[in-house]
Amino acid sequence: MLMNTQRLFDRMKREGLDAIVATAPENVTYTSGFWAMSQWIRRGPQSYVLTPAEGCGEQAVIASTGTLDLIADQDVKIKDVRRYGFFAIESDLCVDHEVRDQRVSRMLSEDDCGDAVGALVSAIQDRGLDTARIGVDEIGIIPQYFDKLVAALPRATITRAAETFRYTRAVKTAEEVKRLRGSARVAELSIDAALSVAKEGATERELAYAFHAKTISEGGTPVLGVICTGPRSALSSGQPTERKLVRGDVIRFDVGGRHMYYRADISRIAVLGEPSDKIKTYHRAIRAGLLRAYDLIKPGVRTSEVFEKVVETVRKEGIPHYKRNHVGHGIGLDGYDAPNITPGSSEVFEEGMCICVETPYYEMGFAGLQVEDMLHVTKDGIESLMSTSSELRIV
Amino acid sequence: MLMNTQRLFDRMKREGLDAIVATAPENVTYTSGFWAMSQWIRRGPQSYVLTPAEGCGEQAVIASTGTLDLIADQDVKIKDVRRYGFFAIESDLCVDHEVRDQRVSRMLSEDDCGDAVGALVSAIQDRGLDTARIGVDEIGIIPQYFDKLVAALPRATITRAAETFRYTRAVKTAEEVKRLRGSARVAELSIDAALSVAKEGATERELAYAFHAKTISEGGTPVLGVICTGPRSALSSGQPTERKLVRGDVIRFDVGGRHMYYRADISRIAVLGEPSDKIKTYHRAIRAGLLRAYDLIKPGVRTSEVFEKVVETVRKEGIPHYKRNHVGHGIGLDGYDAPNITPGSSEVFEEGMCICVETPYYEMGFAGLQVEDMLHVTKDGIESLMSTSSELRIV
Repeated sequence: MLMNTQRLFDRMKREGLDAIVATAPENVTYTSGFWAMSQWIRRGPQSYVLTPAEGCGEQAVIASTGTLDLIADQDVKIKDVRRYGFFAIESDLCVDHEVRDQRVSRMLSEDDCGDAVGALVSAIQDRGLDTARIGVDEIGIIPQYFDKLVAALPRATITRAAETFRYTRAVKTAEEVKRLRGSARVAELSIDAALSVAKEGATERELAYAFHAKTISEGGTPVLGVICTGPRSALSSGQPTERKLVRGDVIRFDVGGRHMYYRADISRIAVLGEPSDKIKTYHRAIRAGLLRAYDLIKPGVRTSEVFEKVVETVRKEGIPHYKRNHVGHGIGLDGYDAPNITPGSSEVFEEGMCICVETPYYEMGFAGLQVEDMLHVTKDGIESLMSTSSELRIV
Repeated sequence: MLMNTQRLFDRMKREGLDAIVATAPENVTYTSGFWAMSQWIRRGPQSYVLTPAEGCGEQAVIASTGTLDLIADQDVKIKDVRRYGFFAIESDLCVDHEVRDQRVSRMLSEDDCGDAVGALVSAIQDRGLDTARIGVDEIGIIPQYFDKLVAALPRATITRAAETFRYTRAVKTAEEVKRLRGSARVAELSIDAALSVAKEGATERELAYAFHAKTISEGGTPVLGVICTGPRSALSSGQPTERKLVRGDVIRFDVGGRHMYYRADISRIAVLGEPSDKIKTYHRAIRAGLLRAYDLIKPGVRTSEVFEKVVETVRKEGIPHYKRNHVGHGIGLDGYDAPNITPGSSEVFEEGMCICVETPYYEMGFAGLQVEDMLHVTKDGIESLMSTSSELRIV
């Protein structure tokens, strides 16, 4: 189970929600385990999951007919699947069908609800929720469909609910922590693979190919690949080019793919040959900031307090002019889950959160330096999800 | 230039739009060349491009401060860049800065507009468009921001405009056709790479790793990777598993990554060893359907007519019960650009469209068979963007 069911139910109760509808791919996968490919790779395709409040009924999945095969193949546990749209799937009547194909056949034999809203409305009405207060994740539903839903349920109260999912997803279940540990590991192995081809004359693209190829061979999916060298490392979102490595160059990785749908986001710095004193001093300073966060983060601590103390540490340890907008964020199905480690945040660390802590420094004409670790907030502190050190690496 | 500027202007004129705002990543890249990483890899980050009607002013880019480096590094031609949000970028004052870094410095020296809507409103007001009729692409802007924009421009008329971009993007510019040819080529080479590891006992995952690794080494980005074997090939969106290849298995590829931001979507079928008569007959039938489309498609022809005749051909040539929801779609920055080759469509082929034509057949207990080519509609017919044959491949 990916979903933190009790946290969702508690929040729904506080908000007075009788039901909530996931529409963004992250929230559909989160509430059902259903990875609806089309909505993950494009914007527009609609899949939803309806979750009634605690004790108020079973969940329902709304899926286009063309994605029913994924529901069966992924063994999605939710039984009520409402399909919409025509999609031709034949069946060889002369063979004994596997359980998966039997389920596809059963789902195909149910009525076509016409479109995604029609399917959702039927699930809502069958649960007697047509006069209910229903939160709808506003990120994945196309606005025309949101309007249509409101019109189809004139006696219901429809509110926006993306924030409710974001809040819920912030505290991870054991299965999610396991997946995040795996995604961090894939990213670390991919950095090792990239560094194994780092030598004078190697290009940023060659490092990036090695990085992503390793991510793939470890079962991951490439997403974030900021791999830049020399002065280009100062480009915070820089993409790999044909620039060739020269001795003394910084190699900055701000990287991470998906592993079992869960994101990694980590950062490491290497130098080809002997680093300059400035690189060493500044890297030590940002790393001191990261390590300070290890000491500070525990349940009950405000994220804004960690922000202030981490920035203060980096300043004291070697970059007196250090400034940042944030020094970290949650990580999960999305690369920026809650909480935000920012000066203005009112959020507080909770047991079970998974966090990226980072202290990047970008200086045009010099370099970009960055360390970023993934951490899991435990009962009385943190455990790192990393297997490698954030020390400066010499290659 | 990616954008078909005249087609956009003509459509805006017909719709009476004084300006249009791109918000989805595809439309931001399309109208400006700006690939704003954060909005491509997540849902939520906001980048926009404002395009006034013909002769009514210059374009503007709205970007978070943290993505300005990409604007400079990608040499985005639009000069008016409005930034929002705090993001620290230092500058070594002792070095001569590259042109790229000089541009970042100039953009940083402009005012912070607070948030994406504030930046957009300032660009609209500076063009005297605050009483204008403005189309806003509703797919990429978060609903709260759409509301905020409407409230900030009480005298303007704001309409939804995603369809206007979709219409415009349907007819490709020369640069787009070149990129699509490249993306098709990367996908074909990746299929070859996957088939090079296909042998008895090889798993679907091993084929997929070879496929995606080749996509990466050719400079592409993995997106769609339906690679399934044997009875699993009947799963239309099936994802690779540990299933091992046995002799006689169908290997179905429905695949394609991105190349220079442009999608591929192609399909090929291979068989390990000798194909059964049913496979041969059915594959010949679906391929006959595809080849029929080659003869039919030219400017002025209705897509629904092609749908009917392609389905009819597949039925006549060997699958009498053949049914489909569509036999193709446009391809470009999105995997499903306009037009749709569907029975109900009122769309007509136009010179410059790039199209995927496909005739998949899914039969549980037997196999999935599919051929899909990418085509470019020319003045009097089509040219294929493919380098490989859609014939059944024996490995």
